[in-house]
Amino acid sequence: MVQAYILIQTEVGRAREVASVIREMPGVLRVDAVTGPYDVIVLSEVHSVDELDQLVLSKMHVIGGIQRTLTCSVVHF
Amino acid sequence: MVQAYILIQTEVGRAREVASVIREMPGVLRVDAVTGPYDVIVLSEVHSVDELDQLVLSKMHVIGGIQRTLTCSVVHF
Amino acid sequence: MVQAYILIQTEVGRAREVASVIREMPGVLRVDAVTGPYDVIVLSEVHSVDELDQLVLSKMHVIGGIQRTLTCSVVHF
Amino acid sequence: MVQAYILIQTEVGRAREVASVIREMPGVLRVDAVTGPYDVIVLSEVHSVDELDQLVLSKMHVIGGIQRTLTCSVVHF
Amino acid sequence: MVQAYILIQTEVGRAREVASVIREMPGVLRVDAVTGPYDVIVLSEVHSVDELDQLVLSKMHVIGGIQRTLTCSVVHF
Amino acid sequence: MVQAYILIQTEVGRAREVASVIREMPGVLRVDAVTGPYDVIVLSEVHSVDELDQLVLSKMHVIGGIQRTLTCSVVHF
Amino acid sequence: MVQAYILIQTEVGRAREVASVIREMPGVLRVDAVTGPYDVIVLSEVHSVDELDQLVLSKMHVIGGIQRTLTCSVVHF
Amino acid sequence: MVQAYILIQTEVGRAREVASVIREMPGVLRVDAVTGPYDVIVLSEVHSVDELDQLVLSKMHVIGGIQRTLTCSVVHF
Repeated sequence: MVQAYILIQTEVGRAREVASVIREMPGVLRVDAVTGPYDVIVLSEVHSVDELDQLVLSKMHVIGGIQRTLTCSVVHF
Repeated sequence: MVQAYILIQTEVGRAREVASVIREMPGVLRVDAVTGPYDVIVLSEVHSVDELDQLVLSKMHVIGGIQRTLTCSVVHF
Repeated sequence: MVQAYILIQTEVGRAREVASVIREMPGVLRVDAVTGPYDVIVLSEVHSVDELDQLVLSKMHVIGGIQRTLTCSVVHF
Repeated sequence: MVQAYILIQTEVGRAREVASVIREMPGVLRVDAVTGPYDVIVLSEVHSVDELDQLVLSKMHVIGGIQRTLTCSVVHF
Repeated sequence: MVQAYILIQTEVGRAREVASVIREMPGVLRVDAVTGPYDVIVLSEVHSVDELDQLVLSKMHVIGGIQRTLTCSVVHF
Repeated sequence: MVQAYILIQTEVGRAREVASVIREMPGVLRVDAVTGPYDVIVLSEVHSVDELDQLVLSKMHVIGGIQRTLTCSVVHF
Repeated sequence: MVQAYILIQTEVGRAREVASVIREMPGVLRVDAVTGPYDVIVLSEVHSVDELDQLVLSKMHVIGGIQRTLTCSVVHF
Repeated sequence: MVQAYILIQTEVGRAREVASVIREMPGVLRVDAVTGPYDVIVLSEVHSVDELDQLVLSKMHVIGGIQRTLTCSVVHF
């Protein structure tokens, strides 16, 4: 399995809305609205890197209110 | 009590407007328009972290002209 | 309870070492070495903001190999 | 008078030490250790820009433990 | 006199336009479109910090096409 | 010849579109949609710095969907 | 195959040295010293994400002179 | 001729020293210690991009006290 944190900046005031949409997506273990330079942090677990790209690029990026996403893949030493 | 600095980036040219709206909010000790990578800096003092989140997310984020806020909570060693 | 993500930049090559030390700390739900602008991401859950500050400032900051930490507190709307 | 916020990044674990040294400096209204991308935030009030530069460059920059300072001068519309 | 560099990020494709408007402003010694994380760099010389603030906030910030400005005041040791 | 990497941030969800337009431009050796803080990375090879500026400022910057470009020229020691 | 750009910040003055060491590594298609916020950019092609992590974490991160690496994986729509 | 601004971050407290060394270098029109996210800003004019690279990589990067340089080449539309 491939795990990753996705750090999301939303348009101001839209974190709650974005988080609630993402929460329903397959492959999402956890999603939280947060303070700091990011507005939402997602923990995802999918079967492949391609599936991760699909989750971010094809599903998340089409949600209204997202400005930027930053994928931090979990590394297994 | 919970104190925090809130560093705010506004749409260009709207710092004065944003600062004047925030100045009227309860829980705001001080608010200044500034130069540098931020446009407005707020010093707030509230009763709890939840109240701080409310101040930022529910009150500040709905003011027109704000692009991004960064909450720096004061730490008491 | 207070939950937060702690984004950590380590000295190059020391992510694994830092992650393994943090994994043993009370209040740490999850810790992962990651790719991207951060090297380690921690998900923590503690009883208060003060306890969170203690975890970051008094416990994490004294671990060798950490350059910078960024605390992103989880917000409950 | 000239007022400014000075956002300070310290070496990890040295925020408290740096804050306590700065607290004794003339021209410092307030100094707090904080969470977020900065470790210490100072609010200063001095008589001139030159005096502000002296405070930052000649006094703060020689304190051990400071990595970077960012001066945000208060703007009076 | 007060000298400062003003680092400007413009909307994509509008650097030339912004630079040509700024070139006509009093207090501007030099203005260049540049590559890198900034689009335009201005070197200004005015009589006071207030005049510098006016130049940036009241004159530059009302030019269409500017997203963000960063004032770097020249320091005389 | 002058070679450079051009790191591009696009509006969210428009990386594929931007990459496909750039792929047809003369002077472009390679263009990829990527994860991380940038959305598209271009490797270009042209005859002069002026030609590079033209490629970026006059051709790329007029493509819809680009927010910011960062040119990293290849250095030959 | 898995392709990625690896953006590297080195200690000042060590870009050439770092680039020459990386050039000899298996899985490296291209490596260039560059100007801009990064000092070296690597284009790599390996068989799996794990192999990419190994290249970055176990091989690159032990080279002297590297401060920070940022992996931008190529995305195939 | 090729003109460029070089934005320099120095070790804390060493801006004046770095600026004074650079001031003596051929190809340097102007050098100032500044406030803000950079410590020194240089305006240079040389005959070619290679000469600019030499100035930055072979001359400036060997000066003690420099942490990072960012070259912003002047663009002529």
